[in-house]
Amino acid sequence: MTKKLYGYAGRILRVDLTRKTAAKVETPYELARDFIGARGFGAKILWDEVKPGVDPLSPENKMVLSFSPLTGTPAQSFHRLFAMFKSPLTGGYFRSNGGGFFAAEVKFAGYDAIIVEGRADKPTYVWVCDDDVEFRDAAHVWGATVDGAVDMLRDETDRNARMLAIGPAGERLVRIACLVTEDYRTPGRGGGGAVWGSKNLKAIVVRGTKRPELFNPDLFKELVREQVDVYRKSPLFEAFHSLGTNSVVYQFYTLGHHPTYNFKNVELENVDVWRPEVLEKYVVKHYGCFTCAIACGKRWKLTKGPYAGLLWDFPEYETHWSFGSTCGVTNLEAITYANMLCDRYGLDTISTGAVVAFAMELYEKGLITEKETDGLRLRWGDGDVMVELVRKIALREGIGDVLAEGTVRAADAIGRGAEKFAMHSKRLELPAYDPRAAKAHGLSYATSNIGGSHMIGWNKYEILSMPEKVDPLTVEGKGLLAKMVQDQTAAYESAGWCAFGELVQTAGYGSVEKTMEWIGRALYAATGIEEFKDPKYIWLVGERVYNVERAFNVREGFTREDDLLPERIQKTPFPRAPAQGQVFELDRLLNDYYTARGWDVETGVPTRGKLDDLGLGFVADELEKLGKALG
Amino acid sequence: MTKKLYGYAGRILRVDLTRKTAAKVETPYELARDFIGARGFGAKILWDEVKPGVDPLSPENKMVLSFSPLTGTPAQSFHRLFAMFKSPLTGGYFRSNGGGFFAAEVKFAGYDAIIVEGRADKPTYVWVCDDDVEFRDAAHVWGATVDGAVDMLRDETDRNARMLAIGPAGERLVRIACLVTEDYRTPGRGGGGAVWGSKNLKAIVVRGTKRPELFNPDLFKELVREQVDVYRKSPLFEAFHSLGTNSVVYQFYTLGHHPTYNFKNVELENVDVWRPEVLEKYVVKHYGCFTCAIACGKRWKLTKGPYAGLLWDFPEYETHWSFGSTCGVTNLEAITYANMLCDRYGLDTISTGAVVAFAMELYEKGLITEKETDGLRLRWGDGDVMVELVRKIALREGIGDVLAEGTVRAADAIGRGAEKFAMHSKRLELPAYDPRAAKAHGLSYATSNIGGSHMIGWNKYEILSMPEKVDPLTVEGKGLLAKMVQDQTAAYESAGWCAFGELVQTAGYGSVEKTMEWIGRALYAATGIEEFKDPKYIWLVGERVYNVERAFNVREGFTREDDLLPERIQKTPFPRAPAQGQVFELDRLLNDYYTARGWDVETGVPTRGKLDDLGLGFVADELEKLGKALG
Repeated sequence: MTKKLYGYAGRILRVDLTRKTAAKVETPYELARDFIGARGFGAKILWDEVKPGVDPLSPENKMVLSFSPLTGTPAQSFHRLFAMFKSPLTGGYFRSNGGGFFAAEVKFAGYDAIIVEGRADKPTYVWVCDDDVEFRDAAHVWGATVDGAVDMLRDETDRNARMLAIGPAGERLVRIACLVTEDYRTPGRGGGGAVWGSKNLKAIVVRGTKRPELFNPDLFKELVREQVDVYRKSPLFEAFHSLGTNSVVYQFYTLGHHPTYNFKNVELENVDVWRPEVLEKYVVKHYGCFTCAIACGKRWKLTKGPYAGLLWDFPEYETHWSFGSTCGVTNLEAITYANMLCDRYGLDTISTGAVVAFAMELYEKGLITEKETDGLRLRWGDGDVMVELVRKIALREGIGDVLAEGTVRAADAIGRGAEKFAMHSKRLELPAYDPRAAKAHGLSYATSNIGGSHMIGWNKYEILSMPEKVDPLTVEGKGLLAKMVQDQTAAYESAGWCAFGELVQTAGYGSVEKTMEWIGRALYAATGIEEFKDPKYIWLVGERVYNVERAFNVREGFTREDDLLPERIQKTPFPRAPAQGQVFELDRLLNDYYTARGWDVETGVPTRGKLDDLGLGFVADELEKLGKALG
Repeated sequence: MTKKLYGYAGRILRVDLTRKTAAKVETPYELARDFIGARGFGAKILWDEVKPGVDPLSPENKMVLSFSPLTGTPAQSFHRLFAMFKSPLTGGYFRSNGGGFFAAEVKFAGYDAIIVEGRADKPTYVWVCDDDVEFRDAAHVWGATVDGAVDMLRDETDRNARMLAIGPAGERLVRIACLVTEDYRTPGRGGGGAVWGSKNLKAIVVRGTKRPELFNPDLFKELVREQVDVYRKSPLFEAFHSLGTNSVVYQFYTLGHHPTYNFKNVELENVDVWRPEVLEKYVVKHYGCFTCAIACGKRWKLTKGPYAGLLWDFPEYETHWSFGSTCGVTNLEAITYANMLCDRYGLDTISTGAVVAFAMELYEKGLITEKETDGLRLRWGDGDVMVELVRKIALREGIGDVLAEGTVRAADAIGRGAEKFAMHSKRLELPAYDPRAAKAHGLSYATSNIGGSHMIGWNKYEILSMPEKVDPLTVEGKGLLAKMVQDQTAAYESAGWCAFGELVQTAGYGSVEKTMEWIGRALYAATGIEEFKDPKYIWLVGERVYNVERAFNVREGFTREDDLLPERIQKTPFPRAPAQGQVFELDRLLNDYYTARGWDVETGVPTRGKLDDLGLGFVADELEKLGKALG
């Protein structure tokens, strides 16, 4: 008999697509205590269940969708849906997350996690309505874009159902394909869409009517009240609320860490299109995920140009970059249209834009010509050609079939030295911050367990001077800073929190520590788990999660050699102010980082001592058994 | 005190966009008795309220949306939504109709008709929730395609609301723009979308909770049971149910009345793509309108080619023709995509395809060149260019701005003899039957009150040999046959019936007379109006409605000279079997028709005697007052 779990739904659903079985097991108390939920659950379950060497596109790969004890409660912005899997893009551990209402709905249906495994013999969708789980034929929606599939599946289940689905890109095993929610709050990165495609899984549709029971509802209510107050007085609230991530596009360009032209970073003409006063004219409505006053989502409308008529989710900051600056495109209409195509086809907007920029640079350098591009002239700044390329990638048509593999594999296929222009870390395309201009942030790209992600260690100190300013160009102390942000992120993501919620609250408090205290109190009030009361424990869980993820990659054969950034980032001086002349001092920063992490500096592998300290003796045991040298 | 109206909702809603008032008046008993509902109501109200000479795009034009006492009841297929207005395309009377659930929902909200008048000072939508009628700002959805607007307006009203909306084409006053329902069961023809655009009306959103009270529910139930039995045994039921109008595309091509290449009617290569066994592979789901067992609507999915991923409403027979045969296109993927664009932009698929075919012929003849086409090569059979042209028409971009005016005005603008290739009657583009190969059907094109429509007098005798075979190529007796079908259509459309319902039931009975008897009994059981019992009275109402519509056009200045078909139809012998060598004998057929109608043969104007016989003395009086010579 396990202890009663407040806050949690109390069950984990295991969906075996091969056998068409849906097993429900109690959520283990120890799992809850040791890993909190969401990202933490996924790390532990993936470590336990996905053995090394598994082909990410085989039935042996699994995807864990997991949620937090705070998801589905009145606490603000704990709506994240976490998807963990072995990535067909990086070949390593992956965690991706999205927003919307899916996570809360699954909690309401009574599950803390869904483990997806096996492979259906034919296109299938899973309909979860509280305790009932049905495996249904998806032949009629297989091949359909997400919007069409959502409409049809809602019609045949429940008009108010929430869902996670893949589009044609995922079905075609495009390695930069993603999962998409019915409201396009997408867990975008790492190729999760291809994992579902390989499993013949089109969608999981969910409707739930239960509500999680809280351990101390009065205390919880008080904590939510405090949170809402802090949100309201936060200096970031208004900007996020009015324009979401679009409030910073122009600002970040001027800060200098906003890459242009595939990280060549030359000046970009017409950058004024990203001034807030221009962008806000496209906004017709605010959109919030489950229980979030920030409501950073915006509905955009295009009224001029060839794409006029589109009313769709707005391009986020990263997407303005991936389809904008890094392709040299300042045509907002084309950027918005490309963003929409990614949502409908089920493509990661960051990797897709990045791979287009990569192709544009190859075209510029003459490494590919119109013979390889199906006659397309891939000129920097041509938004219409970019839009066409997005379609080709999604459908694996012509040059799109090559690019659908991601920059690294595309470079391999193309040869001719193309790999020099693949801007990635661990094969995940780098997003919208140049490591040369923000060293701790860049260090996180290099060391991230999932490759070049901006969210694994989004460095608010360097980027927004929040909660205090740290010079982004200095090298000193950046190992520790990167570690701290990574661990904090792993902690609050294990609590299912949105990064924007955390950012707004931390800015409101003016202190990360206060935020971590608040998380601990909220987790305790929700669950009654004593350990959660202590913010140090929350930090510890963050570090524990981070180390399990790292261990997963170590087990797969990743070493220090994989904590890499492209030559351009390491050797070519950043060409414009204020980071002019900067390069990324990879070795020095890595040494500093491994030291701060308590990992072996030669190999980048966690030490036995560190793992033991984190309560991860079982991880150390297995690594040693596999002959992985621990420091 | 008027008599109680069973079956009817009992009220008419007058929406004055200028004053932002929503007046509700009782549905007059006499209006119900004399015009039944739906198409009949619109004819009478438009005659009464829209004075001659009114600019169709001015606030003085009105649109009547009207419904039948059978709409919203369990009777099969009485879901039609009728829209009557003065057409910006033809300059005359117009009646358009669509399906879905909108009509029933308005009845449930408590209205037999909505009269839309005036002009809002800014983009507006109207939200009708039972008795509450709100005029709401539509700035945020103005400019949006229909799908985006539907999503947003449902979010802010009711997820289950029904609606009628316009897209960017209507807003831009494209004369072939239409109204679109939230489920794309579109009243397509005549430019109703531009009328709403001119009024700054984006959408009418409706939710209703009332149910019409029937006069004799037991008798009604019995009649519905009879109807369902007749449907089931009808020889047409299965074909309509399995493939809808797509069951006849290939068949009609082989019958010879299916025009190709803008009515040049040359052989079409690759016509096998329209064989039922090919088309059925695209169908993923059946779709029925409110209470209709036929469920002729199909959801289609494209899985190959550049448009792969589209899951959308299927192209109807007419659309396979308009974007297919008449453009020489046999690329089903492009046809489906063009159909979807029309739905999203709010364009009539028939007129849009026809205007593309017209442009293709002008290009072939050298009357327009790439200088006029924005560089597009408008070659017969190029589906991708066709798709691009649809977008340009909707957005009035370049050559699209010219074509957006419809074939006749486009021909005027282009000059150089282009009018010879405008295949229209009364400026409405001709649809998918060649008048030379089906004479009574063609005669109905020529004499139709709305111009070249296939639905005003769809000649089941000639086209389907239903309920009995009539040789489509003979001239004798075709005046009377055309009149009979026109009147019957006006009668069952005043009862709000779908043409397919009527066709299935008539084929089931093997008799038009039995169908008309059934309509009379059903109308009586629903309403208790004694007159409806007599099928002769139902026929009389049909003829009455047809004559009021004609009188509207006479009042506008239309004469025999407007009952015209293009020179090609009248003079060029039909080039292929089985109608090879046929021309359309316009004068002889018109003489025969006017005689059958009891109209003046010289002028085509109804005689005093005929109008008096039809109880339309008030119409005769006004025409005489205006100096219109009656025979």
